[in-house]
Amino acid sequence: MSKTTQDVRSERIGFLEQSEIRAMTRECTRLGGINLGQGVCPLPSPPALLEAAAQAVREDLSTYSRFDGVDEVRQAVAEKLAHYNNLQVDPETEIVTTIGSAGAFVCTLQGLFNPGDEIIVFEPFYGYHVNAIRVAGCVPKVVTMQAPDWTFDPEDLERLRSDRTRAILVNTPGNPSGKVFGREELTLIADFCKAHDLLAITDEIYEYLVYDGQEHISLATLPGMFERTITMSGFSKTFAITGWRLGYVAAPAHLAEPIGLVNDLFYICAPTPLQHGLARALKVIGDDYFDEIRTKYKANRDLFCEALTRAGLTPHVPEGSYYILTDVSRFGLHDARASAMHILEKAGVASVAGSAFFASDGGRDLVRFCVAQPREVVEEAAERMQVFR
Amino acid sequence: MSKTTQDVRSERIGFLEQSEIRAMTRECTRLGGINLGQGVCPLPSPPALLEAAAQAVREDLSTYSRFDGVDEVRQAVAEKLAHYNNLQVDPETEIVTTIGSAGAFVCTLQGLFNPGDEIIVFEPFYGYHVNAIRVAGCVPKVVTMQAPDWTFDPEDLERLRSDRTRAILVNTPGNPSGKVFGREELTLIADFCKAHDLLAITDEIYEYLVYDGQEHISLATLPGMFERTITMSGFSKTFAITGWRLGYVAAPAHLAEPIGLVNDLFYICAPTPLQHGLARALKVIGDDYFDEIRTKYKANRDLFCEALTRAGLTPHVPEGSYYILTDVSRFGLHDARASAMHILEKAGVASVAGSAFFASDGGRDLVRFCVAQPREVVEEAAERMQVFR
Repeated sequence: MSKTTQDVRSERIGFLEQSEIRAMTRECTRLGGINLGQGVCPLPSPPALLEAAAQAVREDLSTYSRFDGVDEVRQAVAEKLAHYNNLQVDPETEIVTTIGSAGAFVCTLQGLFNPGDEIIVFEPFYGYHVNAIRVAGCVPKVVTMQAPDWTFDPEDLERLRSDRTRAILVNTPGNPSGKVFGREELTLIADFCKAHDLLAITDEIYEYLVYDGQEHISLATLPGMFERTITMSGFSKTFAITGWRLGYVAAPAHLAEPIGLVNDLFYICAPTPLQHGLARALKVIGDDYFDEIRTKYKANRDLFCEALTRAGLTPHVPEGSYYILTDVSRFGLHDARASAMHILEKAGVASVAGSAFFASDGGRDLVRFCVAQPREVVEEAAERMQVFR
Repeated sequence: MSKTTQDVRSERIGFLEQSEIRAMTRECTRLGGINLGQGVCPLPSPPALLEAAAQAVREDLSTYSRFDGVDEVRQAVAEKLAHYNNLQVDPETEIVTTIGSAGAFVCTLQGLFNPGDEIIVFEPFYGYHVNAIRVAGCVPKVVTMQAPDWTFDPEDLERLRSDRTRAILVNTPGNPSGKVFGREELTLIADFCKAHDLLAITDEIYEYLVYDGQEHISLATLPGMFERTITMSGFSKTFAITGWRLGYVAAPAHLAEPIGLVNDLFYICAPTPLQHGLARALKVIGDDYFDEIRTKYKANRDLFCEALTRAGLTPHVPEGSYYILTDVSRFGLHDARASAMHILEKAGVASVAGSAFFASDGGRDLVRFCVAQPREVVEEAAERMQVFR
């Protein structure tokens, strides 16, 4: 018998819940806390970008673009990839402008993978990655990284691999760990991919936020990797425009083509006037901007990590990104959601339960703070955390 | 053995090709024709909308919104639905703001349907609908509407129904037929849905474009239908902002919830500054605007249909939308793609091959023209078509 209209959720989303991150945001609003939970990034965007996009809106650049984005965006992204990532791509066939990096990942999964295909991910992971993999009918296989340095055992890759393994996902700098994969680790991953003819998918959305002399390395630049790597990134975090929904995929044409087909069908194109604004702004925003935000985020990281330590908690100081996983075992709750609620209720600071980032119970004594906030907000939150001293 | 990296296209998109519409746009550009193919809608958008969105961009309203859209958009959509569609919905739980109506359909399919589920569609159909259904693993079952009035045989619904039938899709006014489903037909469809506990999905993106005293009726307003209907629409066509990617789903909470979960995962949210601009503009754009565009599009329709007739071709004069399916059997090619190319080469006017809208061979003597163009462009195209007199 066919389903009734009451029994409506598809099997592919049967497991999905409203994300822990969104849920915490609601609790925080209810209790009037400072929200260091969701990475909304409410920081000022570059005025040149805002002005360029406002102008493009006013010019009524309102119709569909090509499915893979306007020429000027693909060109600007290609130049940025060459300049910052040391990656040479053809803007005509090897870039797809997407609805954020979330859209990039959905198009990659739906365009290249079949139900039952296995994709290796590193834990702690970004929950959306694992959920999108599962909704596509694929199977995440989890390699656990070990605190405090989030190293992994190379033998785990071999141990997890099967005949169904098709790809490995590398998020660097990582959410929530802040881990920046070094050249040695990436070489090891590249060798693994080449040995077993696997694809690699990278999420490099925090690429400009690396600290302490760390270097951001794109996996696609390693020998023999471009042809098998889908590089995903976007502008949400760098320019504090998480709501603009502008990201991209860079990949060899034979991979970009099916990804673009899904982008066309599911998304049509990224918001056109905002694309035009971005393309124009990228011409005038220079390296000094990226240096400036890196310095700002590092200062926020240092301030909040120091405050956490002073409060008797143990931050895992991140090498990149703007998240701080923090050990809260001192509370003795051994339940991350309860610990996050405890912090929200006692200190008025929202975080996200670490369990949201783990398939194992490795997150039960962790919470994640996001310091992509104006300095004064981070200062106030740091002060509030001293209630735990 | 696992796939090689060269054998990369997923099975779910194995059948997908770059859409006929996109392909024709490329040919048209190459040959310098007037593009009446793709419904890009390059008309002036309401200045109040452009100014409001430019202002929202400049105000840096750049961060994520709620997954279902900013409060003001959901509120404005609820008011619009009550005012124009006679549909009462709760903006808190029954509206999801989406990335265009394309995004609305993807979320509906992925959130509510399982592979193997059958969805009844009317032919001629919008190709993206059928493709999205198939990518979701579902099976389109095609009811053929008969020219010139695009009527259908109610018995075909029963004939096509099986235990796997879960829904029926109604696109009114229809692309490419321009068909406006009347109350009698909708009542018949409603009875069919209720008798067999089916869902109904409507695409009402051309809802404001109905002519000759026709009335746009939302299926969800028929007795007993709201609880089983997903109403999809958006602002791309009405405001000539196809590139802004702003649409919505209105559905009872038990259906809107899974649709919203997919929207959150696949899209995060619709572009936030454009959402704010839309919400503000909807407060000041009144019925006179909709009357005005209706009058304009009707004039374009009349002008071009008259020109086609004069040129010895036979337009199926549409009751709604801005498409004109035209019988080109006179060319004796009996191949729609060849006919469209013939028109482009001889007259310098691009259309879309009718075969793109049919599973059967019913489209082989048809091409679709889109008259969502400035008056002078339609006039020039009308003149050019006289080469066939």
